[in-house]
Amino acid sequence: MKALLDRLQSLLGDKGLLTGEAMATYELGARYGKGRALAVLRPASATELREAVRAAFEHGVVLVPQGANTGLVGASSPDGSGRQFIVSTERMRSVCEIDPDNRSVRVAAGMRLSELNERLAPHGLWFPIDIGADPSIGGMVAANTGGTRLIRYGDVRHNLLALEVVLCQLGAPLLRLGSALRKDNTGPNLRELFVGSSGVGGLITEVTVEVVPRPQQSATALVVPKSDASVMELLRAIESELGDFLAAFEGLSEHALQAAINHVPSLRNPFAPGPLPEFALLIELESSSSAAAIGLDLQACLDRFLENQFDRTISNAVLGSGASLWHIRHAISDGARALGEPIAFDVSLPRSKLMIFRRAALEFVANSFPALIVIDFGHIADGGMHFNVVRPHETPPLDVAQITKLRDTIYSLVVEVFGGSYSAEHGIGPHNLVYYQRYEDVESQVLAQGIRALLDPHALCGAVDFGPAVPTQAQ
Amino acid sequence: MKALLDRLQSLLGDKGLLTGEAMATYELGARYGKGRALAVLRPASATELREAVRAAFEHGVVLVPQGANTGLVGASSPDGSGRQFIVSTERMRSVCEIDPDNRSVRVAAGMRLSELNERLAPHGLWFPIDIGADPSIGGMVAANTGGTRLIRYGDVRHNLLALEVVLCQLGAPLLRLGSALRKDNTGPNLRELFVGSSGVGGLITEVTVEVVPRPQQSATALVVPKSDASVMELLRAIESELGDFLAAFEGLSEHALQAAINHVPSLRNPFAPGPLPEFALLIELESSSSAAAIGLDLQACLDRFLENQFDRTISNAVLGSGASLWHIRHAISDGARALGEPIAFDVSLPRSKLMIFRRAALEFVANSFPALIVIDFGHIADGGMHFNVVRPHETPPLDVAQITKLRDTIYSLVVEVFGGSYSAEHGIGPHNLVYYQRYEDVESQVLAQGIRALLDPHALCGAVDFGPAVPTQAQ
Repeated sequence: MKALLDRLQSLLGDKGLLTGEAMATYELGARYGKGRALAVLRPASATELREAVRAAFEHGVVLVPQGANTGLVGASSPDGSGRQFIVSTERMRSVCEIDPDNRSVRVAAGMRLSELNERLAPHGLWFPIDIGADPSIGGMVAANTGGTRLIRYGDVRHNLLALEVVLCQLGAPLLRLGSALRKDNTGPNLRELFVGSSGVGGLITEVTVEVVPRPQQSATALVVPKSDASVMELLRAIESELGDFLAAFEGLSEHALQAAINHVPSLRNPFAPGPLPEFALLIELESSSSAAAIGLDLQACLDRFLENQFDRTISNAVLGSGASLWHIRHAISDGARALGEPIAFDVSLPRSKLMIFRRAALEFVANSFPALIVIDFGHIADGGMHFNVVRPHETPPLDVAQITKLRDTIYSLVVEVFGGSYSAEHGIGPHNLVYYQRYEDVESQVLAQGIRALLDPHALCGAVDFGPAVPTQAQ
Repeated sequence: MKALLDRLQSLLGDKGLLTGEAMATYELGARYGKGRALAVLRPASATELREAVRAAFEHGVVLVPQGANTGLVGASSPDGSGRQFIVSTERMRSVCEIDPDNRSVRVAAGMRLSELNERLAPHGLWFPIDIGADPSIGGMVAANTGGTRLIRYGDVRHNLLALEVVLCQLGAPLLRLGSALRKDNTGPNLRELFVGSSGVGGLITEVTVEVVPRPQQSATALVVPKSDASVMELLRAIESELGDFLAAFEGLSEHALQAAINHVPSLRNPFAPGPLPEFALLIELESSSSAAAIGLDLQACLDRFLENQFDRTISNAVLGSGASLWHIRHAISDGARALGEPIAFDVSLPRSKLMIFRRAALEFVANSFPALIVIDFGHIADGGMHFNVVRPHETPPLDVAQITKLRDTIYSLVVEVFGGSYSAEHGIGPHNLVYYQRYEDVESQVLAQGIRALLDPHALCGAVDFGPAVPTQAQ
């Protein structure tokens, strides 16, 4: 092993190989995942990365790809063995080729979303996946991030044009999958195998995505729906009347609003002097056309629409002041953590089932875990919901059996009762693997396992081992 | 074989099994592909289809899936052996479950696009893939159809939520891949393997897609760009000023316009009394908001935008009268066929390279094949171009060497010189297999072959054999 580390040291240089204390921040996941690595490899290019993969391959060392280490399911964390390499792409940031006419950009996997958007800004363009973290582009592909504006812009998959991937095979072949084309049907689309992969199967080195014109105006409102049924009625109305502009339609529970407001001193109850509502909706419209260009003022348009909805679907509204409303929305996660220990559920449902699920899940928690507080918020328009359950600091910790009961029951409601997903946008990672094995058809798991064996025959890449829990003879 | 046919007869009934003369229309492809089948199986349900697959699997008979038989690359045609079964899904039309709140529909593979849209209409919804043919939904998935409105709505892949697929394996397992969810990252996305598959790997029995509000207004214009460079300048301007509404931005050459007008007596030169321009652009805006709801009249908006573009990027324009302009656009293919024998090139390029490619390709044809006429039209906004070369009836047929030279040179320009695709939206099928083998990395071909072996270990499903032309030991 000493020989391998020496070889990697001479290959990658001092900045390219970390060991000991320097690995600490790489070994700890943003939410879950905490392990020990043998070394952190930080190649500066795809060429260096391929050399490192070859060396590791020869020694049978497992590689855990890591972008900005902002993932929430432990998919970029090593296990506890101290025998895995973390391969960080954070130094792979030199490629950024913008084609303004094609509205596309080819970018090295390690570039952060924020830097990409800075570089796109002078061209009037942006990559519109809107999430709380600042991940690397390669990590965004591996997690297929969605975020708050999916209803308008789609997830990463919808905007992905091409990938370059290094496989963990002899020779570390570099696959170029796709090009900067919007229409391209040349055989099986292999790049999709690496989207939402949790880093399994290969190491993403370069990404080409479609980018879009930056919005020229937006409009915001925080409204109180009259009832659960009103939520969907309002969504349908806004989609049929203002669908071209709908960018966000977020649900915020009273506890979520309260947690944010308690946590950040500058935030106040937007409904003051009234009380916080039991549930509110943050609506945002966006247009790539300025009001001057098309003679349409979005905020006026939204205000008029909501006026017509008063007494039909909504009972109260705070109009405009988008920045402060989003400030509340983005403070929820920190607010929840300040309150206690969150047990996170990143679920999605058919939109038609979302509010019904919410009631059922709230009732279960209230009955079975009365000490816990549900801080739920979500992306109603795309069916996503962060049903986060928080154990306040002052209450005793849950034991493993209680946490398992909580997770099992919530996911059973989501998947078995309401036809939803136990992993909407954070991915599987080691954290959700048990539910993957429980809820995915065995045929699909066998197929996923077979595909991994094609891509990475010795299972040397990634922190997750897809495939059935019990070896099966199916097929 | 007699025993197998008897078994299928009793399984599928008289309507479910065709032999002899009755097979003629199934044996002939819409553009390419002409073969002979042993029988045509027409199961009425996924259950019947699975029974048929099991029976065929036991006898090692190859199945060629066929939807509405509207594909253009021979992917739904049997070979000439007379030993394959065509499996037509045209009787599988009974499932159509619309969820208006979720804006999704679950539909049997054999339902036609037109019927799906009729059923969606009462809900104010539609499936917005706009193409000339009226394919089955299953066929649309297998071809990943794109069409004229891709820039606004995406292709089938972008709108696909879930699939049901029967694999050609012992027991004919039915895989349910995905659900009616917009955010769902639960392991490798296996349904993508069947999108744009040309029918290889499995038989699609059911499809769940996202659907969108029907447009409430639209605006159309036919404009003449000042130069090739103006085309992209105009596209960028309209995307940054009116991007929320842009639904089509189609290029039409003089020959294409002329062919349409000559062919359909009711069509006239829209620029009369002036001559037809060398190149024109058909622009369409759409909005799901009515003019009354948002106080914005799209046609007025487009007219104003184009007025500002006069002398900058355009030299002439015919405004409005969308229906008659689209009538010309949709008459081009028939017009080309009336003129002679078309040799079709369904290519795409980075938008930034599209007009440059067009000039180079026109020059090549004019120099090397002066008797041929190029009837080109395309989807400029998504980089797609139908560069169709027509041999007029009165000129002598091309021999195989000439056709090969023509195809090789055009595709070489597209792929090797300009980084484009030799198959934008019609797929590979047997017709383009030689270019797949030429232009796809060997590693990718080996991978595609490996995936097919997982899905369909005896290669019993589909008319195309992906994988390298020469067996390879790579990996």
